[in-house]
Amino acid sequence: MTSTPAIAVTHAGGQLAPTTIERRELRPDDVQIDIAYAGICHSDIHQAKDEWGGSVFPMVPGHEIAGTVAAVGPDVTKYRVGDRVGVGCMVNSCGECDYCREGYEQFCVKGNIQTYNGVDYDGAHTYGGYSQQIVVKEGFVCGIPEGIELDVAAPLLCAGITTFSPLQHWGAGPGKKVAVVGLGGLGHMGVKIAAAMGAEVTVLSQSLKKQEDGLRLGAKHYYATEDSSTFDTLRGQFDIVLNTVSAKLPIDAYLSTLRVGGAMVNVGAPSEPLEYSAFSLIGGNKVLTGSMIGGIAETQRMLDFCAEHHVGSEIETISADQVNEAYQRVEDSDVRYRFVIDTSTL
Amino acid sequence: MTSTPAIAVTHAGGQLAPTTIERRELRPDDVQIDIAYAGICHSDIHQAKDEWGGSVFPMVPGHEIAGTVAAVGPDVTKYRVGDRVGVGCMVNSCGECDYCREGYEQFCVKGNIQTYNGVDYDGAHTYGGYSQQIVVKEGFVCGIPEGIELDVAAPLLCAGITTFSPLQHWGAGPGKKVAVVGLGGLGHMGVKIAAAMGAEVTVLSQSLKKQEDGLRLGAKHYYATEDSSTFDTLRGQFDIVLNTVSAKLPIDAYLSTLRVGGAMVNVGAPSEPLEYSAFSLIGGNKVLTGSMIGGIAETQRMLDFCAEHHVGSEIETISADQVNEAYQRVEDSDVRYRFVIDTSTL
Repeated sequence: MTSTPAIAVTHAGGQLAPTTIERRELRPDDVQIDIAYAGICHSDIHQAKDEWGGSVFPMVPGHEIAGTVAAVGPDVTKYRVGDRVGVGCMVNSCGECDYCREGYEQFCVKGNIQTYNGVDYDGAHTYGGYSQQIVVKEGFVCGIPEGIELDVAAPLLCAGITTFSPLQHWGAGPGKKVAVVGLGGLGHMGVKIAAAMGAEVTVLSQSLKKQEDGLRLGAKHYYATEDSSTFDTLRGQFDIVLNTVSAKLPIDAYLSTLRVGGAMVNVGAPSEPLEYSAFSLIGGNKVLTGSMIGGIAETQRMLDFCAEHHVGSEIETISADQVNEAYQRVEDSDVRYRFVIDTSTL
Repeated sequence: MTSTPAIAVTHAGGQLAPTTIERRELRPDDVQIDIAYAGICHSDIHQAKDEWGGSVFPMVPGHEIAGTVAAVGPDVTKYRVGDRVGVGCMVNSCGECDYCREGYEQFCVKGNIQTYNGVDYDGAHTYGGYSQQIVVKEGFVCGIPEGIELDVAAPLLCAGITTFSPLQHWGAGPGKKVAVVGLGGLGHMGVKIAAAMGAEVTVLSQSLKKQEDGLRLGAKHYYATEDSSTFDTLRGQFDIVLNTVSAKLPIDAYLSTLRVGGAMVNVGAPSEPLEYSAFSLIGGNKVLTGSMIGGIAETQRMLDFCAEHHVGSEIETISADQVNEAYQRVEDSDVRYRFVIDTSTL
């Protein structure tokens, strides 16, 4: 076991505070990583407050991890000491079910193991990236190519893959029109990635407050959904509507902005049920779908794509003692667009 | 103009009665068809009763038309006198918009012209297949290949294409599991076509009343949805759920039967809104979609496929004087599985 500084929350809704945790001894296929940066995802806050139920404390959040390899087990072949690497939302899966074999580890039939707030198959609790070191099975470590700094790469491991995966699956690219609903942590990555893919990007935000940012990040158009004429103007326009908002939206209105065969992808999810009319789907062979992070090989493809296109997250780097304040600001939507913890301040 | 016997309804909800209608003189690109059989689709009844609003009377319903070519205009190249042909739900579209050019005439931006209860671009009211003759623009006529009789082919022009199109689009085939919800006019075609495509077919019906039929038509499994254990048993099973039922179903329960990446396609549509949880889509990258008939080229592919695989509708052939009774029986779900009018009895 190796001791490493970390930030933990000891009970639901408690303050995050410095602590020390133990990381396991390297197994043959393990990679030990010196964490440089860890992004703060809204889901960290939900789990630290036990808003989804089932949280295990003490909890060290963090599933947007970027750093360098400090050591490798004897069977590790993909990484060497000094390599730039990242870890996302998962650190293990069964590896044997259909979904694991198809590269959908996030849908592992046995259940994937979350990077934190999870219990690994051996019974060990998992602790996340708000820490200086982590030990992760090689198969769940991704390489971060040159061409992208570690700080702006960290949020790609969750926000990046969450938006990249459906954009790629539903065909974002040259000649295609993509609307991104909401310009927050996920939305701003959606805009940057869709634009890098060559699509014509429109932001649909409640107001025009962030319009300047949206256009700077790569959007060509920006509409306020509080303006009732927006949905009429945009009727039948988009190949893809990427909904990053976790609120109850008028689904039929958004479906009306799709062209025939277009897809509305939900990556944000409100807890209450949503309503739609079957005619909104039938009248245009339209698709309503969802997407959950991405598989490991797909995450690697996303990182390679982002490095090639110099796409990173827009970040505000904070020190360890600012995490509680940052949580509050995320809840107040007062972040443009992702907080990243500099773990050297731990 | 040519006079031809037909069956018409003169006011909303009125009885269908024999009459005579005029068909237009052949234009250069027109095909004149001697109708042999016309299927009765539930939508005929909705429109004859003006249940969807906007019906125009007198109305000659019928958009499942099979017959032989009686004459062709001088510019017609695809058909000759005596050819076996069919006409489905549309008889015209603008031909110039993106959707027409992509083969989605049903989504023509100018609006496709319905085979009956429509007004063509020249202002003429359209009259459908409950008639002995019809004149249709060559581009909206499909060939009915040898290998399939005209009577069992007629319902393919609506019920066949409505189920074939989404099954093909969403990848039904060998190694794939398809559930068909509801075993009526659409559902029985879904079962036959999905089975012919090589998929493993399951029928999900309210009860087991039609189980014997379902298995005979090509289904391998048959479950009653009134049995509460059905949805647990079928969790994560299907690549495609084809919903042919026009009732408010528990969408989340049906989505739970899809495997990761699977699609639930609605071809039946209730008038009231449906509810779903975003988590049902996100937790498995699942798809909720709809599908409306099919384009003309696609309809031809469907007919070729059905002829090759000897797939026709299960029909009960009736004479013209039985149409009113047949309407009542369709409303009572007392038809296995499609009424077809023998137009020689007109």
